[in-house]
Amino acid sequence: MEKRDILLRDLDADGILRLTLNDGARRNPLSEAMLFELGSAFAKAGSDPEVRVIVLAANGPAFCAGHDLKEMTAGRAAPDRGRAYFTKVMTACSGVMQAIVACPKPVIAEVSGIATAAGCQLVASCDIAFAAEGAQFSTPGVHIGLFCSTPMVALSRNVTNKHAMEMLLGGDMISAGRAEDIGLVNRAVPAEALTETTMAMARKIASKSSMTLATGKRAFYAQREMTLAEAYDYASGVMVENMLACDAEEGIGAFIEKRAPHWQDK
Amino acid sequence: MEKRDILLRDLDADGILRLTLNDGARRNPLSEAMLFELGSAFAKAGSDPEVRVIVLAANGPAFCAGHDLKEMTAGRAAPDRGRAYFTKVMTACSGVMQAIVACPKPVIAEVSGIATAAGCQLVASCDIAFAAEGAQFSTPGVHIGLFCSTPMVALSRNVTNKHAMEMLLGGDMISAGRAEDIGLVNRAVPAEALTETTMAMARKIASKSSMTLATGKRAFYAQREMTLAEAYDYASGVMVENMLACDAEEGIGAFIEKRAPHWQDK
Amino acid sequence: MEKRDILLRDLDADGILRLTLNDGARRNPLSEAMLFELGSAFAKAGSDPEVRVIVLAANGPAFCAGHDLKEMTAGRAAPDRGRAYFTKVMTACSGVMQAIVACPKPVIAEVSGIATAAGCQLVASCDIAFAAEGAQFSTPGVHIGLFCSTPMVALSRNVTNKHAMEMLLGGDMISAGRAEDIGLVNRAVPAEALTETTMAMARKIASKSSMTLATGKRAFYAQREMTLAEAYDYASGVMVENMLACDAEEGIGAFIEKRAPHWQDK
Repeated sequence: MEKRDILLRDLDADGILRLTLNDGARRNPLSEAMLFELGSAFAKAGSDPEVRVIVLAANGPAFCAGHDLKEMTAGRAAPDRGRAYFTKVMTACSGVMQAIVACPKPVIAEVSGIATAAGCQLVASCDIAFAAEGAQFSTPGVHIGLFCSTPMVALSRNVTNKHAMEMLLGGDMISAGRAEDIGLVNRAVPAEALTETTMAMARKIASKSSMTLATGKRAFYAQREMTLAEAYDYASGVMVENMLACDAEEGIGAFIEKRAPHWQDK
Repeated sequence: MEKRDILLRDLDADGILRLTLNDGARRNPLSEAMLFELGSAFAKAGSDPEVRVIVLAANGPAFCAGHDLKEMTAGRAAPDRGRAYFTKVMTACSGVMQAIVACPKPVIAEVSGIATAAGCQLVASCDIAFAAEGAQFSTPGVHIGLFCSTPMVALSRNVTNKHAMEMLLGGDMISAGRAEDIGLVNRAVPAEALTETTMAMARKIASKSSMTLATGKRAFYAQREMTLAEAYDYASGVMVENMLACDAEEGIGAFIEKRAPHWQDK
Repeated sequence: MEKRDILLRDLDADGILRLTLNDGARRNPLSEAMLFELGSAFAKAGSDPEVRVIVLAANGPAFCAGHDLKEMTAGRAAPDRGRAYFTKVMTACSGVMQAIVACPKPVIAEVSGIATAAGCQLVASCDIAFAAEGAQFSTPGVHIGLFCSTPMVALSRNVTNKHAMEMLLGGDMISAGRAEDIGLVNRAVPAEALTETTMAMARKIASKSSMTLATGKRAFYAQREMTLAEAYDYASGVMVENMLACDAEEGIGAFIEKRAPHWQDK
């Protein structure tokens, strides 16, 4: 079934799930079908105990070019000029971005080529991102009269206001090096080192307790939206529960006894 | 009328409005008169369809040295020791800074010289900022017993806590290069390239649909103050309305047909 | 009394209080005793008019290695498996971190060696931080099944999401240079220049009006948690009160008259 092929899923023995955008000839657009596949994949991975960490990669010269403009334009033929359809697509797309944030498994973007508009948003939504030195990033909606208003939600939670505004108002591509400088990606590396860089981080994370990672990732994004006092109240409670969990007892014991820990779910 | 001369207004054929602080002999202080002129200029530009983008520049060796301390000191002669006057000035100043943020037209700072105290705040309040390599920035209020408490509102929404605190508690000048590193300006360029750098960005932005720019700028600052879920709900709605606007239909159509778009207001 | 010796207090003639973690053989853990000493010291310094600025330093090769894991582990022997004890320690630790933020005196971290877990949080909680080039930073809780959930509250208010997530999910050490790049410390300097760098900033700050510093520091952290409009309303009020205070009148007068100011409390 062709639909499945636009997103490849490979789970290795370490618990690393590689999700690969596989519509490279079309620059991996976030078509309705792709959004559906991504949404399903993150939902399934979130509850699959075999999956410990997720890498989001892409086949083809582009990482992801954002929404499928031809599909969007076809939506205009409806009697409501597309309102219901656009609402459906935007809801689906925002849902996928928030599913990455809400997913209890860490998500690493492996950005091999250009990531534009909602493709740039996809990178910004991941917990960690590595890029090939030749990758480029932009939020070019202004060129076509459609401001990148949903991409900027994720973008502006990664980079400062002026850096975000330069990208959003100018619409130009920035290099991977610039993306590293402003904090959109963690590191730009030579193309030939990209997968190994990503997989090394993925393996490192996969060796940790899944309970601990899930606890921490959820707490991270939750406390970001609180005042300092609220955040400390909340995080202190998280720490107490974490201390009482088996994996912390085992991990701290192993540390004190100078041996490797054995996590409950591994 | 002399009052008008402290702020020059030049609107070019591309729709670029250059506002030039023109009280250079006094280091362009934000006197009552200057605040009034700036407030009027941003209000007028905001609703003027001829204005597509605003550049805020300055004549003289200083960009802007902040409040007019002699004027402020004169205010102390009042029976209330200046309370009503200081309140009036601070309200006017905060009003100008927020008028820049609220202005539907993008605002670019072109910082040729020092920008201190409320002058630094002015730079921080613009959407984009370019600086000459010799420009310098500081929030030096601690030197005179008056902490830069209103400047820090804008500063701390551009740079991280420790960078802001170093400037605020120490009060020292930082170079344009450092300002670029910490995100206070987008880029520091040689003095002789400053105006061209600014104008190139201004021309680029002026070529976009004003409706799209206004939609995006408003949405940007609005969503920054929301939680992630709220921001996505809001921005998704913004995108749907934007898709239904003429300029997006034209822009996307032009992109698919590989031709230049014609914006409704141009 | 041995308890006192784990935190050294030295107040110099400039009003600089050096607090030195002095349990270096154990890597200065945030034991119950150390948390008590720090809490007391910040509370006392906050209300001591002789103290104008605080430097937080450490003896030994490590700055601070975070919680005392042996002490924490001993807490598991209780009938509730440690719940009450962990709650007590987390509350004490979060209280110390918030006491640094709430302290009316500026706090500068002088980081000579590794700062990990709650030790990294301690650095992140200070207003300004300088590090020796050989210092290292990490939030390594994932290695032992205990996510650094309270450290991340402070960390994520200093560095961007992706930088924080890389540290939190990977758990690896980062260099002082990287800590400078991502904004966790203000500057990394050669080890032999560390104390002088810190003390130079401390002396500069100590020469300012304590009233002004207290006003500004309180306002800084308060306005960070407000919307832009709220922050301007609040900060404008702070500025008016500050203008009406003696030290601002004196400071502005001295500036206009080109003489050194004399602060009321000095």
